[in-house]
Amino acid sequence: MRIKLLAVGKTDSRELQKLIEVYLKRLRHYINFELIVLPDIKNTKNLSESDQKKKEAEIILKHVNNTDNVFLLDESGTEYTSTGFANLLQKQMNAGIKEWILVIGGPYGFSDVLKQKAKGQISLSKMTFSHQMVRLFTVEQIYRAFTILRNESYHNK
Amino acid sequence: MRIKLLAVGKTDSRELQKLIEVYLKRLRHYINFELIVLPDIKNTKNLSESDQKKKEAEIILKHVNNTDNVFLLDESGTEYTSTGFANLLQKQMNAGIKEWILVIGGPYGFSDVLKQKAKGQISLSKMTFSHQMVRLFTVEQIYRAFTILRNESYHNK
Repeated sequence: MRIKLLAVGKTDSRELQKLIEVYLKRLRHYINFELIVLPDIKNTKNLSESDQKKKEAEIILKHVNNTDNVFLLDESGTEYTSTGFANLLQKQMNAGIKEWILVIGGPYGFSDVLKQKAKGQISLSKMTFSHQMVRLFTVEQIYRAFTILRNESYHNK
Repeated sequence: MRIKLLAVGKTDSRELQKLIEVYLKRLRHYINFELIVLPDIKNTKNLSESDQKKKEAEIILKHVNNTDNVFLLDESGTEYTSTGFANLLQKQMNAGIKEWILVIGGPYGFSDVLKQKAKGQISLSKMTFSHQMVRLFTVEQIYRAFTILRNESYHNK
């Protein structure tokens, strides 16, 4: 299985980018993992929130095949413990799918089209974090999930 | 009111340290805020988990006065939304206390002494994050809380 993490908009902090890269590098020991940064929607001033979400969905869906399992990272989603999230990851691997796609949306959340397409929604926290930081949290959690599944010491350190 | 964030152990990532400093700088526009990094317990190999927690508690309590409100950041604590957390912050300010002390513990959590002393426990997420990263999440949330209380645009960006 391959994991693709789709995120809208460039990371503007070099430090955050570096920290994300640390986990991307570590993840490559476990799985074919790709973080794909999608371009921001241009000229958002003339777009309603709903139109902006629709445009984002179009760009996101270009990276999704019908056989992929898509999960959205959304505040309103299901909260998992790190172990629960590791079990969810294991379930995807057992399902024999080619790609598990995780999506971090833009500031307004996801359009209904994407929500209908998604197999699940994951909430990292009840709190709102910056969209840039959510990427770091997500790659760290995926890395942690692999160490949990392999009984490595990282999780309980 | 002053806010003191106590955390055990040095931040070993320079990037994480820089990101934390960004929020410390921003926070100083709103409040007297201090991040105090307490030294790691030495020679932990010969200590039980329980003894290590006790030693940590001793060090932490040196920074706490009887009139301070202490809140522990702990996975088993109460989950707040960012707005809920902002309300909690406002409540502390209204209470007329001198210091609001937030504590990020070591890898084994908190000793009973500290739990009894604490006015509350806050969980950032059901997921476990690295203790170093929790500092970044916490300073970002405190900064976010001030922007929420002042109706500034950061929270909904």
